[in-house]
Amino acid sequence: MIFSIDRDVLLNQLLIIQKGLPSKTPLPILFAIKFEVHEDYMLLTSSNTDVAIQVMIDDHSLSIKESGNVAIPGRYLIEIMRKITSQRVEFALIEDKLIVIKADRSEFKLRLMDVEDYPEIDFLDLDDPIVLDSQLIKTIIKETNFATATSEKRPILTGVNFKYHDNHLYCVATDSYRLSQKNVKLRTHSKMFDIVIPNKSLDELNKILDGINDDVELYINPNKVLFKMNKVLFQTRLLEGTYPDTLRIIPTEFPVVIPFNKEELLAAVERVSLLSPRDRETNYNIIKLSLRQDKVVEISSTNNEVGDANEEIIPSSDVIGPMIRIAFSSRYLVEALKSFSSSEVLIQFAGEVKPFVIKGNLDQDLLHLILPVRID
Amino acid sequence: MIFSIDRDVLLNQLLIIQKGLPSKTPLPILFAIKFEVHEDYMLLTSSNTDVAIQVMIDDHSLSIKESGNVAIPGRYLIEIMRKITSQRVEFALIEDKLIVIKADRSEFKLRLMDVEDYPEIDFLDLDDPIVLDSQLIKTIIKETNFATATSEKRPILTGVNFKYHDNHLYCVATDSYRLSQKNVKLRTHSKMFDIVIPNKSLDELNKILDGINDDVELYINPNKVLFKMNKVLFQTRLLEGTYPDTLRIIPTEFPVVIPFNKEELLAAVERVSLLSPRDRETNYNIIKLSLRQDKVVEISSTNNEVGDANEEIIPSSDVIGPMIRIAFSSRYLVEALKSFSSSEVLIQFAGEVKPFVIKGNLDQDLLHLILPVRID
Repeated sequence: MIFSIDRDVLLNQLLIIQKGLPSKTPLPILFAIKFEVHEDYMLLTSSNTDVAIQVMIDDHSLSIKESGNVAIPGRYLIEIMRKITSQRVEFALIEDKLIVIKADRSEFKLRLMDVEDYPEIDFLDLDDPIVLDSQLIKTIIKETNFATATSEKRPILTGVNFKYHDNHLYCVATDSYRLSQKNVKLRTHSKMFDIVIPNKSLDELNKILDGINDDVELYINPNKVLFKMNKVLFQTRLLEGTYPDTLRIIPTEFPVVIPFNKEELLAAVERVSLLSPRDRETNYNIIKLSLRQDKVVEISSTNNEVGDANEEIIPSSDVIGPMIRIAFSSRYLVEALKSFSSSEVLIQFAGEVKPFVIKGNLDQDLLHLILPVRID
Repeated sequence: MIFSIDRDVLLNQLLIIQKGLPSKTPLPILFAIKFEVHEDYMLLTSSNTDVAIQVMIDDHSLSIKESGNVAIPGRYLIEIMRKITSQRVEFALIEDKLIVIKADRSEFKLRLMDVEDYPEIDFLDLDDPIVLDSQLIKTIIKETNFATATSEKRPILTGVNFKYHDNHLYCVATDSYRLSQKNVKLRTHSKMFDIVIPNKSLDELNKILDGINDDVELYINPNKVLFKMNKVLFQTRLLEGTYPDTLRIIPTEFPVVIPFNKEELLAAVERVSLLSPRDRETNYNIIKLSLRQDKVVEISSTNNEVGDANEEIIPSSDVIGPMIRIAFSSRYLVEALKSFSSSEVLIQFAGEVKPFVIKGNLDQDLLHLILPVRID
């Protein structure tokens, strides 16, 4: 196996492949990146228990003298490529288990792992994909993934539920204290599906999509989903189990509706949180929001040891409904607000002990819901 | 106590004061910042077991209505000031133990600590300071502090030795594996001194000096040193004990001298270190440097598990002396090289098992020394 390639080209692909390397694994061969060097292109593969990634490199800077397959220790290879500054690098297999990497006056000899030990990765090979714009996938991840559960108490909640029927994609995430829901109308047509993608896989996919502007094809079977990009395959396992029916917990009647400038609200909430006490259950800071008779909103916190914080906010336009007073974890509101592209948000209250809903003026298909806590 | 001030002015001074707040302390009052508000200026003080800091604020934006002394919880105050975006903030003592901070529509009430409990800080009040340029102090810290010991095995080595006699300031740091030495000729005249300043104190001083361009006055007694700037006092304890005599370990005869381009050498050493094995004692990566007969320098590492790395460097001008082969911790060389302003460095070898010395073409008064390890 002998090839040479532009260093930047290879490094960029390795940085994608890196997201499939395990941090620890009972199967040490997975610490390697599998190189399959063909006559005029090569495939790089990485995998762990959650995801498998494959990139195809057929860049014009790639010059292949001899094909072959090898398994190169992943982290060492990536560190070396990061530190190399020369324009080109050359790879040559010199012994059964030794590869030489040359770059200008640098020479690295890396001990290979046994490529025969590398497990066969079963990338889905199906028809009829759902086609999504890469930016749309990024937006969905940004708007929902933060609301998934981090604790494994209910594993199904550590993923985002993607449900498709009648040309609509419904995406929901909840940790049972708050919920994010994004609905998207699709132009393409597909079979129904209802899957839950692990939040960590979505984080990795999100980073990979940063460099990608094309359409993405989704292929789904009961156990996994494949995101197929032009030269990158990203496949992740799905979470097992039935996702809870969240629609019924979203209130439909809102006696109080308050419009806010998003940045102003966010800044006030962050300041008030500095002094707020923590919720026993979630360990997040509890703050209070109240709509006064004079239609000014007060956000406040009281910490017996440290002191009080109080912010007044003038709603950004007309308020609907009577006085209300509600307490909740500030972090949920901060994260929800940050996920909006909108500059104006609307908070809709169903009552002092009922979940409240946040919407944005420019994010019509997005909804965040937060459960209040009881005020002592 | 009532005053108002420009938020940015106060925050900048608080960020200096912050460096004197303890992370933990048996004396909780030290978590507070002491405010002494006089008729037309105020003093802010923080202190911990190592350092004490005082800033004087007499900015024209400061408007004092009522003088007084208070002890405000430091971290909360600083967090609040960071998050406030209004131009002005107002402080008012409303009860014996409660202060109100107002900024636009934000209002914070902070519980105070008892200002009477705040210990009297004894800032040195002496004559005849040594006057140093603030940039020179920063340079000395950058060039020496990294070479101090981090382990407390020999506490005296966790500081930088500053010795003054005959108009020369000699600064030395060593962790017993490597050494940095900076000599400075001063124009001012002073009494002799020989002190060791803790590395952590120098780190904090370094950050404070970032915003300061004036001369700094040094006042020294046997236990502490005061750095007096225009509006900031920074006082640190000194390390007790006698600093070892390091002059005698610096070789004076160098049969081999090799000139390098600093950046080229640094990049090669960093690449080779990626695969290098670790030293049992220091846990740092061991690399080898050898001068070949053809006057090319080879830097290499051999790791039985991972592989080998090899770099060739052409010396940047004429080499003096015969072939040599020496092994050492790459981190020592990397840190030494990074402390130079010079683009060209000279490595002077006294022998394969003797310390070697690094000098820079533009840093004539600076010397780094590294002890080799034995090659197996």
